[in-house]
Amino acid sequence: MSRWPSNPRGRLQQAAMELFTEHGYDQTTVAGIAERAGLTERTFFRHFSDKREVLFFGGEQLEAMMVAALRSAPPEATPLGAIEAALSAVTEFFDERHPLSQARQVIIDAHPELQEREGAKMDRIAGALTEALRARGVPDPDARLTADAGIAVFRSAFAQWVRSDVGDMSACIEECLATLEKVIEQGR
Amino acid sequence: MSRWPSNPRGRLQQAAMELFTEHGYDQTTVAGIAERAGLTERTFFRHFSDKREVLFFGGEQLEAMMVAALRSAPPEATPLGAIEAALSAVTEFFDERHPLSQARQVIIDAHPELQEREGAKMDRIAGALTEALRARGVPDPDARLTADAGIAVFRSAFAQWVRSDVGDMSACIEECLATLEKVIEQGR
Repeated sequence: MSRWPSNPRGRLQQAAMELFTEHGYDQTTVAGIAERAGLTERTFFRHFSDKREVLFFGGEQLEAMMVAALRSAPPEATPLGAIEAALSAVTEFFDERHPLSQARQVIIDAHPELQEREGAKMDRIAGALTEALRARGVPDPDARLTADAGIAVFRSAFAQWVRSDVGDMSACIEECLATLEKVIEQGR
Repeated sequence: MSRWPSNPRGRLQQAAMELFTEHGYDQTTVAGIAERAGLTERTFFRHFSDKREVLFFGGEQLEAMMVAALRSAPPEATPLGAIEAALSAVTEFFDERHPLSQARQVIIDAHPELQEREGAKMDRIAGALTEALRARGVPDPDARLTADAGIAVFRSAFAQWVRSDVGDMSACIEECLATLEKVIEQGR
């Protein structure tokens, strides 16, 4: 977290993450974030509705990337194959942000209300993936179950990745997807 | 929703559901709920922290029933088999509450913040099931993925059940579990 991005949004995000880490999330104010970034509060509010949103604005980008990948999966792909394409499309996005994600996770882990927000974000992405599967002709409940299974894989993979030193999201997704396949194939 | 339960908690819950349905969730006050139940506001607050909790207090009971069933599954049960036991243990609980659950769902569907609260409730139950699987010796990420897959099945089954006229939760869980097995076995 040493190089300062040139765009205001990136500067505000980096300033916020620094202050959250140095002084704690609760003690950090929007005024403080703007000051650290060398920008005004007004600029802050042009990019984020509040300090919490600094931690979550990436969610929309994530959703858009996953949905786009699912849409461009070959028509003959199985539902699970299409979901795998959606997950594979975001591994690089994560690997580029490994130290930032680790700092962010420390803050999330300490705040139950941020964990709820994170859960809601994942629910929204699962809903978007369900819609995208339906648009490919996958019926219900298949579409919803495949999307939810994919998000379950993503959450387990993310938990593994964010705690690891290396930050190889692709390997974590493969391991978790293979594990899900194994527990289902072991039967009831 | 016509017979009045004799216990205060049940009376308050029924009064709240009637008022939520008649006048809307936002327009209903704790004072109004207590009045309709023939009880005091003080009694209300002995049972619920606010009107929102009237919709969610069943979550703890649900979690306890699922965890107990998972714990008493035979030691040789597979992780998925143990999760199936947890889901099967709550079907009667739901079927007894079908009209109440349908009325509740109308309110949840109309309020995004209640949907977030519902998602957080399911996340907590998934966490409790993960712990219970670990206690049976299931390693990670297997435990987390099996629990999350089970909750995905539960959520799809519930969505089907709450919208159906008959209210046969057991059939909905079997259909959704079989669908998950099918989409995984179809491969990627």
